[in-house]
Amino acid sequence: MSQLCRIGVAIDEDLLKKFDALIHKRGYTNRSEAFRDLIREELVENTWKTPESQVVGTLTLVYNHHVRQLTDKLTDMQHDFHTHILSTLHVHLDHDHCLEVLVLRGKAAVIQKLADALIATKGVKHGRLTMTTSGSEV
Amino acid sequence: MSQLCRIGVAIDEDLLKKFDALIHKRGYTNRSEAFRDLIREELVENTWKTPESQVVGTLTLVYNHHVRQLTDKLTDMQHDFHTHILSTLHVHLDHDHCLEVLVLRGKAAVIQKLADALIATKGVKHGRLTMTTSGSEV
Amino acid sequence: MSQLCRIGVAIDEDLLKKFDALIHKRGYTNRSEAFRDLIREELVENTWKTPESQVVGTLTLVYNHHVRQLTDKLTDMQHDFHTHILSTLHVHLDHDHCLEVLVLRGKAAVIQKLADALIATKGVKHGRLTMTTSGSEV
Amino acid sequence: MSQLCRIGVAIDEDLLKKFDALIHKRGYTNRSEAFRDLIREELVENTWKTPESQVVGTLTLVYNHHVRQLTDKLTDMQHDFHTHILSTLHVHLDHDHCLEVLVLRGKAAVIQKLADALIATKGVKHGRLTMTTSGSEV
Repeated sequence: MSQLCRIGVAIDEDLLKKFDALIHKRGYTNRSEAFRDLIREELVENTWKTPESQVVGTLTLVYNHHVRQLTDKLTDMQHDFHTHILSTLHVHLDHDHCLEVLVLRGKAAVIQKLADALIATKGVKHGRLTMTTSGSEV
Repeated sequence: MSQLCRIGVAIDEDLLKKFDALIHKRGYTNRSEAFRDLIREELVENTWKTPESQVVGTLTLVYNHHVRQLTDKLTDMQHDFHTHILSTLHVHLDHDHCLEVLVLRGKAAVIQKLADALIATKGVKHGRLTMTTSGSEV
Repeated sequence: MSQLCRIGVAIDEDLLKKFDALIHKRGYTNRSEAFRDLIREELVENTWKTPESQVVGTLTLVYNHHVRQLTDKLTDMQHDFHTHILSTLHVHLDHDHCLEVLVLRGKAAVIQKLADALIATKGVKHGRLTMTTSGSEV
Repeated sequence: MSQLCRIGVAIDEDLLKKFDALIHKRGYTNRSEAFRDLIREELVENTWKTPESQVVGTLTLVYNHHVRQLTDKLTDMQHDFHTHILSTLHVHLDHDHCLEVLVLRGKAAVIQKLADALIATKGVKHGRLTMTTSGSEV
């Protein structure tokens, strides 16, 4: 971790009060931490906009495991990209439905393509790619 | 406008450098202004989450004016909510298409309902409600 | 407008009922129109992802006109991009605040850059770029 | 699963061609599946807007495990909500950084509050709540 700086920010008293109320509601006990989180959120968004960036993301899939050959298909697709899938977690939501989370790492464009293909698979009811960070760039 | 405060924010040197690079790219010449914009964005989002909040928004519609009776219909619907529509702007995009922007003010839930109804009208090709602020709350 | 097709879509009865309830709530009287709107929304999102695409958008700005030289500055910046600004609408929100909507047309990357610069200007309290369509591509 | 219906959707030939091109790019081999995914996405969004709805979501956190007592703190907070956390997955991203994904189930408002509190914790560099479905409602 780099050196800690202390910078000054000019802000209207009214605006500051409203911000403090909002971050208190969200559970922050430290205003600097809230500022840093706003910054990191912007940086993560920005990183993902560049297709060549190295990114980390998670893909959440909900599917019906009774759909014929779906589990095999999803497994096959994942193995084709096994170097980009760090790990997966599986939860049996009910008699029919599974939730699977994949932790993905690679170039933004490749991760997006892999996520699109898994979400598009018949039997996958809902899928969403969540952009996050490798930690070191923020 | 209320009194101007100057607060201190603790932040890693690396993170600060990345933030400065990002806001420079976006055209900011003043770091405090970038911080205030991040805060105001959060406050606007939060205000719109409460259906009873007084809000200001703009609705952008693109439609084909050749669709039978569409212009009359949109005009009628707008007059039913005339107290919520501050003003409108109309642009002739090409031979067929119009773009209309409505500036809306009222309770968040009412503005959302009005926007939904206009967007759902047959012949309206694309519509999007943009949440903004009355100015005084941020 | 091109020829109208009628395609078949296979869908579970339960899912269809829920969709019908949702679009009824949003004011649709016609299910095909709701489907077309979902499609057009995806196409607009996709177009804006390509920096070279020709796009149409609206920029909503709320600012305090008492900030010294702000009005002049915003006017100057707009004139530098006058070929990209089709029209603007101005509303006096209260004693201090103005809302301005700009209708923009050009390459996605240029429109984004212009919007970023206007939003970053000191005194602009809130700004948001709304992506829409020229009409002909959807 | 309920009975399968086959409904007709009226759509311009041009718009259909563009939609087919887009879903092909995303990996769909079946147009009905693409339509169903659009519908389900809308339903999931809508469910999460009601604070009392029963929902399923995933929370992705990236944090620096060297921050003093952070791991203990996150563990304690999770145990306070253990009935809402179905499972978690942990990945060691590098020497300093951990990624943790939590699968959450409960009322939308409670899940949001739990996610806010974990994201706000000092040392958590990035956090994002992903809304998904229990499967049965879509």
